[in-house]
Amino acid sequence: MEVTILGCHSATPRSNARPSAQLLEMRGHLFLIDCGEATQIALRNANAKFSRIKHIFISHLHGDHFYGLFGLISTFQLLGREAEMHIYGPKGIKEAVLLVLKLGGAYTPFPLYFHELSSKNSELLYEDDKVLVRTIPLQHRVYTNGFLFQEKEGERRLNMDAIAQYPEIEVCDYQNIKNGKDITLENGKTIANTELTFEPHRPQSYAYCSDTVYLEDLATEIQGTRVIYHESTFLKINEELAAKTMHATAYQAGLVAKNAQAEALILGHYSSRYPDVNMFKQEAQEVFKNVLLAEDGKKFVFEN
Amino acid sequence: MEVTILGCHSATPRSNARPSAQLLEMRGHLFLIDCGEATQIALRNANAKFSRIKHIFISHLHGDHFYGLFGLISTFQLLGREAEMHIYGPKGIKEAVLLVLKLGGAYTPFPLYFHELSSKNSELLYEDDKVLVRTIPLQHRVYTNGFLFQEKEGERRLNMDAIAQYPEIEVCDYQNIKNGKDITLENGKTIANTELTFEPHRPQSYAYCSDTVYLEDLATEIQGTRVIYHESTFLKINEELAAKTMHATAYQAGLVAKNAQAEALILGHYSSRYPDVNMFKQEAQEVFKNVLLAEDGKKFVFEN
Repeated sequence: MEVTILGCHSATPRSNARPSAQLLEMRGHLFLIDCGEATQIALRNANAKFSRIKHIFISHLHGDHFYGLFGLISTFQLLGREAEMHIYGPKGIKEAVLLVLKLGGAYTPFPLYFHELSSKNSELLYEDDKVLVRTIPLQHRVYTNGFLFQEKEGERRLNMDAIAQYPEIEVCDYQNIKNGKDITLENGKTIANTELTFEPHRPQSYAYCSDTVYLEDLATEIQGTRVIYHESTFLKINEELAAKTMHATAYQAGLVAKNAQAEALILGHYSSRYPDVNMFKQEAQEVFKNVLLAEDGKKFVFEN
Repeated sequence: MEVTILGCHSATPRSNARPSAQLLEMRGHLFLIDCGEATQIALRNANAKFSRIKHIFISHLHGDHFYGLFGLISTFQLLGREAEMHIYGPKGIKEAVLLVLKLGGAYTPFPLYFHELSSKNSELLYEDDKVLVRTIPLQHRVYTNGFLFQEKEGERRLNMDAIAQYPEIEVCDYQNIKNGKDITLENGKTIANTELTFEPHRPQSYAYCSDTVYLEDLATEIQGTRVIYHESTFLKINEELAAKTMHATAYQAGLVAKNAQAEALILGHYSSRYPDVNMFKQEAQEVFKNVLLAEDGKKFVFEN
């Protein structure tokens, strides 16, 4: 699993501070999460293949998470995209995008599907044989969802050394073995699957939680998620301001990661008022050890 | 008069190619012309003072001229702007901007006025004692206007050496002299104004013409304009494609400048298909000598 931070700063975009957007590579999918202004430029800087993006998840309709969507869709059109595109976001997103595109006489030669969200409960947005994606209800000044991406349990992995002991086992048996089946040889002897395979890779999971006020119940909602991105707009010293603007502090993000028993926490959505982003890391580490700092253009790789 | 090119490339924004936007400084005004995606970042790179921008002119509603407007207005709000803001652009722009702002729960604490355009004839958009701004009807795939910015005739300039010959002339007389009045001394002698002053500076003028197909009548419309920006998306070799997509070639831009008897021509809105922007300059110079190439971040200063 790879998480590429396209932008991780709050509020107004500046020369060296891009607004929220991330690329999540998971089991062959390339999911785009949020799309602040100039995300398409950040995608080019990250050498992302535009045609591989088929699902875009928008947390909420504040400009710093959403205003890059118009340009990105227009660019898909200019690039002659044919593959379908699915956009998941709060109710209202469809009307806005279609109105803005229509004003420019734009058409989309590719099928464009909007999945508008309005539920306050977690919803399943996407599922195939490899992954599933759910909303994580958050609380911010406008209707907001985070997104939980989960790999499904994979196939068992072939133990080639063990298989080599049985010349009768052929390549055409491999899929059955990966699926967990025992193998019966011609002499009637049955070889247990566990002898021929290793355990499947542990499924990865990623929870994107931005923007939100601190929610005590969030840890239950995303319990056991291996990697969590949680906004940390403020530090503890501005906890009241965080509550008032419905944002979280780095310490609160650490609490969520600890209580959810995560393996890693990525911080981001930093306010520009602090001189050094390491202050966020130090504060979150008061409660949770493995804290990573988002940085525009940075790629995090998480092994299974 | 100063023209700062914030972006001058056609179509999709890339790492080193920003879409259309320009800042025109004229007689104390800071006019923003077009506002492609990420224009607010280009404004910061140019060290522009956001609060000085009070008039934004949008030529047409294609994304590369317009998609930066949502973010810029949101940023004005975050910066606590109080001064009024006037936006001039094609009919429909108000509905789109207000819808997108409303989705994010945004409000504008400053007065925001939309001046929607739909006429096919030139209209006066703004006038004060120093400048006036008119539309230049253009022809593109969607309804499009260029903009003509004209300084008004200034005051006569004091000839301080000449004035020093007459100790009776006091500072409080200066404004009358600048206004062209003769001065009668106590001894009854009248000093002709032309003896005390120089001619006013020649008024500057700037025509922004983008996007448009080549229009033979355009030179008449902007006759005598001192500096012309004319799009040159293509070179002559792609003249048919230019006509089909309703864009112009560098040669055609040169023709417009020549026939309008301009002093300088700025080219821009380059297609990315050509390896070297100097090709645009060479081609336009076949008909018009003083050709300047727009470049992201470049500032052109034109003396009176």
